[in-house]
Amino acid sequence: MDVYLNGEFVEESRAAIAPTDRGFQFGDGLFETMRVSGGKILQWEAHRERMQAGMAFLGMPPLPEMARTAEVILELQQRNGVVDGIARIVLTRGRSEFGLSPSAVQDPTWLITLRSHVFPRTDDMQGIRAVVTRIPIYPPLVGFKTLNYLPGILARRCAETAGVEEGFLVDAAHHVCEASSGNIFAVARDRLITPGPGQALPGVTRRVILQIAERGGWETVEGSLSRETLRDAEEIFLTSSIAGIRPVIGLDGNEVGTGKIGPVTRQLAREYQHFVEQGGF
Amino acid sequence: MDVYLNGEFVEESRAAIAPTDRGFQFGDGLFETMRVSGGKILQWEAHRERMQAGMAFLGMPPLPEMARTAEVILELQQRNGVVDGIARIVLTRGRSEFGLSPSAVQDPTWLITLRSHVFPRTDDMQGIRAVVTRIPIYPPLVGFKTLNYLPGILARRCAETAGVEEGFLVDAAHHVCEASSGNIFAVARDRLITPGPGQALPGVTRRVILQIAERGGWETVEGSLSRETLRDAEEIFLTSSIAGIRPVIGLDGNEVGTGKIGPVTRQLAREYQHFVEQGGF
Repeated sequence: MDVYLNGEFVEESRAAIAPTDRGFQFGDGLFETMRVSGGKILQWEAHRERMQAGMAFLGMPPLPEMARTAEVILELQQRNGVVDGIARIVLTRGRSEFGLSPSAVQDPTWLITLRSHVFPRTDDMQGIRAVVTRIPIYPPLVGFKTLNYLPGILARRCAETAGVEEGFLVDAAHHVCEASSGNIFAVARDRLITPGPGQALPGVTRRVILQIAERGGWETVEGSLSRETLRDAEEIFLTSSIAGIRPVIGLDGNEVGTGKIGPVTRQLAREYQHFVEQGGF
Repeated sequence: MDVYLNGEFVEESRAAIAPTDRGFQFGDGLFETMRVSGGKILQWEAHRERMQAGMAFLGMPPLPEMARTAEVILELQQRNGVVDGIARIVLTRGRSEFGLSPSAVQDPTWLITLRSHVFPRTDDMQGIRAVVTRIPIYPPLVGFKTLNYLPGILARRCAETAGVEEGFLVDAAHHVCEASSGNIFAVARDRLITPGPGQALPGVTRRVILQIAERGGWETVEGSLSRETLRDAEEIFLTSSIAGIRPVIGLDGNEVGTGKIGPVTRQLAREYQHFVEQGGF
């Protein structure tokens, strides 16, 4: 399998990250994980904009190379024989031998990988179980997809300890914020509630689902999601670029609603599937 | 220069971290930076214990290889012609191709590097300037030295923007917690105050300085450090394994005390220098 590293296509086993790379030393960088279907990156512009917002926040200079991403992924599709797959781009501040100072670093590290992946269809959706953990989000970085991903890993560990698939992170006021991988939606009395900016990653699929819901006449709320609202929700589902919509049918040991995938989740998943197949609205 | 990576000594340019290493993907790992003087790792046991506490917290299995660290560093001293230097060890959960799950990963990555470094003597101590930033600590991880180091980098960026050397992080109650690299001590009315567990990294040099101070008859307090106490402090200094004691002579644009390195800082620095030269008490 070939990957693209700093301007060159190389066999993955020959793609070497330096031990002095600040991505490896400090998690000083960003990433995006994207769905590639039939030659196109789904929602590339939204992923690009989020990464650029992260670069601005971390004080990283613009990367002209980024404009070639779609082209590089097309080439990786051909080289690796991938039709549908998962693309991952990683940007770090590059190498520095000593010290924290971010200002002296010159050459960023830019990595693009593409792996084959079979995306399940809506009809094959499986419900998962989740727990609300005590792991807090880290507010300054919650809006960006940085390489500092330990909060998510800690939440996933809580989930695994509890024998379930997902763990939710909370904020200082004990509101429920996001899953270890994915945004949270609760369906309560015909309203769709999802935690707002500052509480959760501005997910690319989250945005699409909000648009689909609004077009479908649902009332949507972006704001704090209390534990009680979540506990009493008729339906809960998660969204992410890779997994699409994942229905949550059990929470903290109890059934969510009927304990089966609910009608709102099914409807939105069908429309999202349509969106993916059309490559947009 | 040779480094030690997963059981082998290799030339640094040939030491390759895989793009799938979870240290690079998520910052899923730990590090320690240690002072090596005349063939000995200063306070190795304390560094080892802290790393092992981090491993337990992150759910990483014990690493028998860790027992050989001192021996590996001796070998690196000979190979690289280093007498005094900085050793850095990095432990990550190893490679995983897909997903967050920490439980399926088998082979950790274990890296040890050693670089020459001239440690300044007490007499050459230079005062630095600092600002209190709005960057919060991340409480679950503040007790460990993980590869999720963006909070420190954000604080350092605030310092650079302000044209000073150091930026201090705060907690949710706006107490001052730690510097981007190093623990904070304030001298106020013959007491030495330093933020306590849960507010700052349990620094190895911090612990030694507390011991030196207690032996010298100073009253020491490990607890919350308010912005007011810091502002009114007679002296402020930082401690770290690499930089030893760094006097802070300016804070938020004002002079600390007389604006010169104070007598308590000088005295403790002399005793710390003695401690280093003796290799212990």
